[in-house]
Amino acid sequence: MSRSQAIDQLREALRRLPGVGPKTAQRMAFHLLERDQGGARVIAEALQRALKTVIRCRRCNNFSETELCGICASTRRNSATVCVVETPADLEAVEQTGAYQGMYFVLMGRLSPLDGIGPDDLGFDRLKKLIENERIEELIIATNLTTEGEATADYLHQLLEGCPVSVTRLARGVPVGGELEYIDHSTLSQAFTDRRPW
Amino acid sequence: MSRSQAIDQLREALRRLPGVGPKTAQRMAFHLLERDQGGARVIAEALQRALKTVIRCRRCNNFSETELCGICASTRRNSATVCVVETPADLEAVEQTGAYQGMYFVLMGRLSPLDGIGPDDLGFDRLKKLIENERIEELIIATNLTTEGEATADYLHQLLEGCPVSVTRLARGVPVGGELEYIDHSTLSQAFTDRRPW
Repeated sequence: MSRSQAIDQLREALRRLPGVGPKTAQRMAFHLLERDQGGARVIAEALQRALKTVIRCRRCNNFSETELCGICASTRRNSATVCVVETPADLEAVEQTGAYQGMYFVLMGRLSPLDGIGPDDLGFDRLKKLIENERIEELIIATNLTTEGEATADYLHQLLEGCPVSVTRLARGVPVGGELEYIDHSTLSQAFTDRRPW
Repeated sequence: MSRSQAIDQLREALRRLPGVGPKTAQRMAFHLLERDQGGARVIAEALQRALKTVIRCRRCNNFSETELCGICASTRRNSATVCVVETPADLEAVEQTGAYQGMYFVLMGRLSPLDGIGPDDLGFDRLKKLIENERIEELIIATNLTTEGEATADYLHQLLEGCPVSVTRLARGVPVGGELEYIDHSTLSQAFTDRRPW
């Protein structure tokens, strides 16, 4: 409770940001009003602009301001390979490596029964249609290596059984710079299982 | 760099929140667009409402939606005592104790030469006028016990020399629940200096 209903409402609103609790929300609200009213205006306008202009690419499901996003519209990428990621942030992470020149499909989440996210909430139907309608040779499943990401990958793998596409998964193993002594057991045993010829 | 200029702008805008770096700003932007577009709308509207309706109380300088804030307008509080705090958040902290029934004056900051905040940027003039124009008996300086807060308190103390008002400072000492073994030296020595009769 502060002295102004508008500040209380602002604080409650800021709590909808991920990772922001009541104390942080209050600090943010006071900071903006005390020291950075220009910043408050910029944030409000950026939110409204993003809500108005950001749509989903009709091919890869990623955020885009055009019907077909920059990657999907590009003629310089390998359109026979599709990498399935959970979120736009994961896509950015892959892009930043520069190691991948194919297309993407963004699920916008992962299977998570506890959060009420089932297969219908993710873009599986659209992904299946994409595979049926275009000449896709390889589908790289790049969901996270968490329990939920693995469940999502398993579901996807089963869903695509019978499709004329080769399904691959990101390699699991010791991270670059990793020391065996400190790697968890399941990663290390996975690295043994997936060992490859020199 | 994401795939959409509007998302990039939103991420840059969110970085103006205190304590929010590029990674967090990206997570916030994606979270709002992916999962909580209603939240994005609520935040934008709350920011704009607060910018429009929140002004400063003409007496105590705190945020308020009316010319005179609720505390200053109250007839049930002791108007002969004024507690000087740095920020509205500090005021809220004092109010939450329930231990204080007087009035406040909010400086909206502290002297901080490194940040370019000098005496003219804080409400010293208005505080002095308040003391001259109203019947104030006691001024409790409740700035933080940090270097900057102490400097602000010292400045204020000098400024008020000659004014017919008794100036007091919050007690310094061992916090409730504190164990002497773990208290820093200067707090402990202060607690000795300020020891009081049983």
